[in-house]
Formats: sequence, C-alpha cells, structure tokens
Amino acid sequence: MAAHPVQVNGLYTDFYELSMAQGYFYAGKEQETAVFEYFFRTNPFHGGFLVFAGLADLLEQIRSFTYNKEAIAYLGSIGLKPEFLEYLSNFSFKGRILSVREGEMVFPNEPIVRVEANLIEAQLIETLLLNILNFQSLIATKAFRILLAADGKSFADFGLRRAHGFGGLMASRAAIIGGASSTSNVQAAFMYDLPVSGTMAHSWVQSFGNELEAFRAYTTINPKSSILLVDTYDTLRSGVPNAILAAKELEQKGDRLIGIRLDSGDLAYLSKRARKLLDKEGLAYVKIFASNQLNEHVIYSLEDQDAPIDGFGVGTELVTGKPDASLDGVYKLCESGGKPSMKISENIEKNTLPGKKMVWRFFDEDGNIFRDGILLDDESPDECVWLYHPTQTDKKTQVCNLRKEQLLKPVFENGFLLHPMPTPSECHNYLIQRAGMLPAEHKRFVMPHIFKVGISEKLLKLRNDLTERYRNSYGL
Amino acid sequence: MAAHPVQVNGLYTDFYELSMAQGYFYAGKEQETAVFEYFFRTNPFHGGFLVFAGLADLLEQIRSFTYNKEAIAYLGSIGLKPEFLEYLSNFSFKGRILSVREGEMVFPNEPIVRVEANLIEAQLIETLLLNILNFQSLIATKAFRILLAADGKSFADFGLRRAHGFGGLMASRAAIIGGASSTSNVQAAFMYDLPVSGTMAHSWVQSFGNELEAFRAYTTINPKSSILLVDTYDTLRSGVPNAILAAKELEQKGDRLIGIRLDSGDLAYLSKRARKLLDKEGLAYVKIFASNQLNEHVIYSLEDQDAPIDGFGVGTELVTGKPDASLDGVYKLCESGGKPSMKISENIEKNTLPGKKMVWRFFDEDGNIFRDGILLDDESPDECVWLYHPTQTDKKTQVCNLRKEQLLKPVFENGFLLHPMPTPSECHNYLIQRAGMLPAEHKRFVMPHIFKVGISEKLLKLRNDLTERYRNSYGL
Repeated sequence: MAAHPVQVNGLYTDFYELSMAQGYFYAGKEQETAVFEYFFRTNPFHGGFLVFAGLADLLEQIRSFTYNKEAIAYLGSIGLKPEFLEYLSNFSFKGRILSVREGEMVFPNEPIVRVEANLIEAQLIETLLLNILNFQSLIATKAFRILLAADGKSFADFGLRRAHGFGGLMASRAAIIGGASSTSNVQAAFMYDLPVSGTMAHSWVQSFGNELEAFRAYTTINPKSSILLVDTYDTLRSGVPNAILAAKELEQKGDRLIGIRLDSGDLAYLSKRARKLLDKEGLAYVKIFASNQLNEHVIYSLEDQDAPIDGFGVGTELVTGKPDASLDGVYKLCESGGKPSMKISENIEKNTLPGKKMVWRFFDEDGNIFRDGILLDDESPDECVWLYHPTQTDKKTQVCNLRKEQLLKPVFENGFLLHPMPTPSECHNYLIQRAGMLPAEHKRFVMPHIFKVGISEKLLKLRNDLTERYRNSYGL
Repeated sequence: MAAHPVQVNGLYTDFYELSMAQGYFYAGKEQETAVFEYFFRTNPFHGGFLVFAGLADLLEQIRSFTYNKEAIAYLGSIGLKPEFLEYLSNFSFKGRILSVREGEMVFPNEPIVRVEANLIEAQLIETLLLNILNFQSLIATKAFRILLAADGKSFADFGLRRAHGFGGLMASRAAIIGGASSTSNVQAAFMYDLPVSGTMAHSWVQSFGNELEAFRAYTTINPKSSILLVDTYDTLRSGVPNAILAAKELEQKGDRLIGIRLDSGDLAYLSKRARKLLDKEGLAYVKIFASNQLNEHVIYSLEDQDAPIDGFGVGTELVTGKPDASLDGVYKLCESGGKPSMKISENIEKNTLPGKKMVWRFFDEDGNIFRDGILLDDESPDECVWLYHPTQTDKKTQVCNLRKEQLLKPVFENGFLLHPMPTPSECHNYLIQRAGMLPAEHKRFVMPHIFKVGISEKLLKLRNDLTERYRNSYGL
C-alpha cells in the first residue's frame, strides 16, 4: 500500500474530546482505564445487515495521531492549558483494540470494535474512529447491495466527481471491499492497490466535431481496450451506428472493440435496441455497459427486465451512500476504572449496554449464520445459552450445541498492529464467504427478515441492576 | 491558512481523464484550446438557490496537480505510454480560470466556473474540480438553509464523526461559509482559521459515576466556559437539577454557567420545561443549547413552537448534505479549437449550451437581484436585452436599463492566483450581503419561487444552428 496522501494528526478530533481530555487530566483521571465500544443502531438503506469496513485505515491513522509543535501551539492559542499541552506533546495511543474483520457482516447493537486504554487515549480517538468506520462501512454496504442487485454482473466505481471531497479516497476503497470490480479513482487505486478502469467522456467526442472520427481516433490509440460512449448526439441513430463502423474497421486490423457505453435515456430500451443492432452486424462480442444515476434498485429493475447490459458504472449513489448518506455508529463508554458503565436515554433504544463485551456468532448444522449473542467478556457460553431481545426482554431464545465463533479479535496493542491487515480484495473475499452463510431473507431489499441478536442473561441482569442503581441514586 | 494536510496530485482524477489526455496527445491535439464550463442542473434540497463554495481549495490543489516520479511509474504500470508519461512528468496547469465568488448565490444552468486551457490541461482537472466544488457548494447551501431556519440564532457544526472520511475537513469550511458560527472540527479550524467550539459528551458524565460530581469537576476546570450535557440519565429529573446546583456553586465563586445542552427526547418540550426550572432558580442567564439529528426543517419547527433554545449543534445532516448527499454539477466542453461545441442528449434538459459564455446579473431599482442572463462572452448587453427560457424558448422577457454585473471574474492565470482568495468568514459576509438582495420567495423552503435565468437571443440562435448542423450531419 502506498502512503496515504492524507496523514492527519491529533487535531483530527472534535474540540470537546480535547476539552474533556484536559478535564480528565486536571481531575487526576489520566491513568484511569476505560473501555469504549463502537456499534450502530440501525441497518442502513432499510436493509438487513451492515458490511464492516475501514479498520486498516483507522489503525494507520491512529499511529500518526500525535501532536507536533505546530499543533501544540495552535491548541494553546485556543485555550488549552500549559501542563496539559505538555502531556499532549508526548501523547500517542498505546491502548488495545479488538475488532471484527473488515468485510464481516454485522448487525445493530453489536460491539464491532472495542477500545481498551486510559480514559484520555480512548476519548481522543473517538472522532477519528467514528469518522472512518461509519463512512467506510456505509459505502461497503451500499456496494454489496449493488453487487447483489447486479446478479453476477460486474460494476465499476465512477463516483469521485460526486464524492465528498477527499472522502472520495476511502469511498473507492470501501466500494471495492463491498463488491465493485474496479474504480475510476486513480489516486485511490494507487494508494490501496485497487484495479482501475475507465472509458471516455462526451468531451472526447465533441472535441473531434465528428463522432465517427472521434471513435476512430480512440480505437486507433487504444485498439485493445476501447469502450465507446454512444450518447453524445443520438444513441440509436448516430452513436451505435458509428460504433459499429469503428468496430468493423478494428476487426479489419485484427482487433476487437470491447464495448459501448450508454449514459442517458431509458437504459432497458436502449440496451435492447443497441444489442439488436450490434448482433445483426455480427458484433455479438461487443459488450454493453451502462451508467447514469444508477443504484441497487435501478440495477435490480434492469436485471428484472432482462436488459442486455454486461456491466455497470455506478457513481454518485455508491460513493455518497445515498439516500442515507451516513451510518449512525456511536462509540460509548461501557467500563470506567474497571467498573461497568452505561447511559440511560429519553429514547429507550439509545440506552447503552454496560460492561466489556464479546460478540459470539452461532452457526446451524448446515453452516449458516443462525444467531449472534452479546455476552459479557468474562462469560464463556455453555452448551446452551439463553439470548434475550435487547429491548423487548420478554422475547428470548435458547441456542444449544452449536458451532460458535468470537467475532472480536485483538488487532492493535502498544502502538502496533498485531498482524498485517488484509487487502481490500481479501476483505471482499471474506465478505463473499460470510455472506454465503447468511440466509437469503436477511439480504432481501424489501422488508428483510430481521437477523436476531440477543444479549446474555448476565448482561441483562447487569443492565437492570445498573439502571435501578442510577434511578435510586437520583430518587427516580 | 495553515497548509492543507491533504495535498493531492495529478493522480486525483478519473482514469478516463488520463486515457483521453493520452488520446489527445497521440492525436496531436495537445495544443488545441478548449473551454469547459462548470454548472449544475437542479437546486439542491428542493430549494431555490445554490451557495457556491470551494474555489480557494480548488485553486490551491490545482497548483499541486503534477506528476512526480512515483506517480509516473504507477501510471506506466497501468498502461500509459512512455511519450505521454514524459509529457505528464512536465505537466502543470497553466490555463486561465474565471469564477463567481465563493458565497455567491447561483442558479441552475449558469456557468459558475469557466476554464480556458489546452485540451489536456482542461480535461485532466475535471474530476478534481467537480469533486471539490460539488461538495462544498452542497454543504454551504445546507448551512445557509439552517441559518435561515434558525432565525437569527446561531448554530455550530458538530458533524466530523459522521462526515465522509477526510471530506470532513472541507465540510467544516463550507459550513462556515454557509452560516455555522463555529465548528467542533479542530483540524479544519486550524487549517482554515475557523472559530472552534464544543461542550462535553456522555462519557464525561459516566466516567464520574455521579452526575453532579461530573458537572462540578467540569465547571471547576472550566469556570468560564462550561456547557453541561444534561441527558445522560434523565434530563428533567436529574440533569437539569444537577446543572442548577452546579450553576449556583459557580455563582458563589463569582462565575457563571454558560449553558446546558439537550441531546435527546422532544427538544421543544424539554427546552420549555428546562427553561422554567432554570428561571425559577434565578438562572435566566443560563443558555439552552440543543442537538440530536437536527436539520433546517426540525429547527424551523422548533422556532415555530417558540422553543426557548439559544443555539443549535448540527452534525450529520449538515456535513453530509442529507438527503441529497450530492450536487449534480457537471463540467462540459463548450468550445474546442476556437469553435463552439455542445452535447445533445436523450434527455433534453441535459443538452448543453454551446460557446464561451458570461453570466450577467440584473438588479431592480430597489437593488434586488431581478434576473440572471447567460450571454455569449463577446456579447455586451445593450440597454435592453431579451432573455429566453433555456428549454421552453417561447417564454421570453425583456430587461431594460437595469444595473448589471458580470458574475464571472478571472481568478487564476499562468499557474498563479490573480489575487488572494477571501477567507471563509469573508465569503460568509458576502453571502449575507447577496442573500439580502434576493427576494424572500426564492429562499422559502416549500415550493420556492423559481428564480428566472434566461439565455440571450444570440446564444439561442447558436444552439439552434449547431443542433441543426449535427442533425443534418447524421441524417437525423
């Protein structure tokens, strides 16, 4: 992996993280241990799962999350105090991080990443962690949904021009983890070693004045890799006929046109008509690619209509995670000074689960993913475990004698990665393997079957006890 | 302005820009001149305007848009050819750029930025330009809508944790241009010299076990700047009463609590109840801040209900431009080798306007913005100008004897800025000045009155002639 052109430092945080860290420092709590957990509350896109992504970038950025002289001077200028600035000038994150693998399919309320560190370390990295993991998981999930819709056909990430500034770099990485076969984003391809692809723009055709001449010039320079954009003037009456002429001229030189690209109009109609025109001329090998505001729903509909499209270019909606545009992942303190801690909210769904926890995944006899259980870290599931619905606790289920896995594994300790991170394509392969074990009804777009995640009896009791204790202490 | 921690280079582009550039090079067109224009087609958020932003960042990045040895080696490895790589190794953008000012209110179809360069230069910067301008303009527009809703109250950008990776840096800049009074994003504040702010998180309160103790510890360390988060356990029965105790203790030391923050539950209800509790205790000076999934519509509703909230923290929806998540800005070739050029689309709204153009803004006798006109660059509007609807060309209107301004001004030439760029707060001041001249009905959220942008008779004729010529040449 080439160096990330963006190396942020300890300033990449919300100001309140720094003012709280300063508070912990002056309150003498800088050595107090803390455990924070990262989780999300709602599956994006009204779907049935999240594809977790972003870990490798997060861990790389954490290693440069320090304060140089310039940063310290700036923090002084906005009011942080000298003793604490001295502390920060020697700061680096030395805590321990456990995480599920990138490409894993995860579900609401599950701790996906667990950070064990002193209170200041764990607090200062909050914003960075949320920023990277929320975004990349959103985009990897979107990409995988598009892959599901495309039904075995491939799609390329074309989104950089509509991505959120330099967020476009991580967007392309996450798109590959989720299922894009290539990206148009050259810098991301360079940084993350991703496959790169691209065709041509309308400006190429316009700059020649004559469409056929433009196609000829392109195929002459790129005899083995031309995909001709056919909608600059009129797809069926000008673009496709000119592409056919160019393809035949290429044949005479012993080469073959790779394909044409449709970028406007009704893609089902135009692809069928274009396919006929090409086939009639003996150009069955010329592929049809399509782009223009695509998303998983449009692609699903095109497949449903048997549109003869061989591959898709997906831009805006892929790299912005439209319409959600964000994942609601949060990072919450669950243990402080060795004691379990929780937040009680006006909105019951926003109550957190106290204590340091582990996610266990249970598989049925066919090897399918059956249930996830959130247990306290020091619990070891017996042959049989009762799992309770996290909020409607009268719902419970027992799992017995099933194969099980711990999803959270140590990845970072004492300032170093514990093992090299998998590449984006390795993460994608892992996703495919795991998704293959998840029953189809959870992957459906319309009203997916909710995957059951339960909490252990011991965790339920801890939450009830703590809630009771808080209520009593405030006389509620 | 501190150095941007992100300095991208010439790799920050879609692959097709490079393969087209290589094509132009081998087709002997590398000296051919080209004019591209940046414009958008639809106002975001179903609104009546766009706030233009991102220019200063774009121009800074264009100056580093070159290819070092590492980049050249990479491009060779993905198939670009030696002579063209030699050309790229000496490449830098030497063209001319005209632009409207950041903070300007602009409308669909208007050229907002015009790039005059050789074909390769102009093509290679396309993706970078779209990436930065589309995103920052979207966010500045969102921020200004929030400012309009907040009705004179202030709001802070809290969005970094939900921003799209490192896109969060430019998001905070654009938020300030649009109207945020401060940002929680320390790195963006440092880079762009923005005002920074922040309160505390639930983890602070949790880490003390006891809420009152947590508040006391915070006010002791920050006696002049404390805003206490009151919803960790129970807003009205625990948080506000404890904040009142902390405020009274602070009074005894001669200081004053700045405010409390509500972050869950019904903000209208809770703010009214909290205001009463505070006032009853003689704490009318303690302000109430609110956050939690806010956007312009929620804030408008809170104001409409007279919720006694003094300021807002807006995160996710501000920095992601939700629900749009993107602006549909495009960059189209309008002149090639000195000749006007256009694209004809299956979708008539996607036809482009040919020729190098200028936007003229006309003001009525009260100084209000009345009409914008798109004219060919060599046209000088007479006393009276006919302006035609861009697509429904039977609609036309005549403007006579009005004060007028050219919106596009030269900003970049021969590799250098022509003058220093205004700061984000200067851009915001300009926005306020211009927005003050735009009649209220265009700024309305619900079905805003469409601001009229017309094209000149000469431009209309050019478009008709070119369309005719293309149709004839393809026998359509």
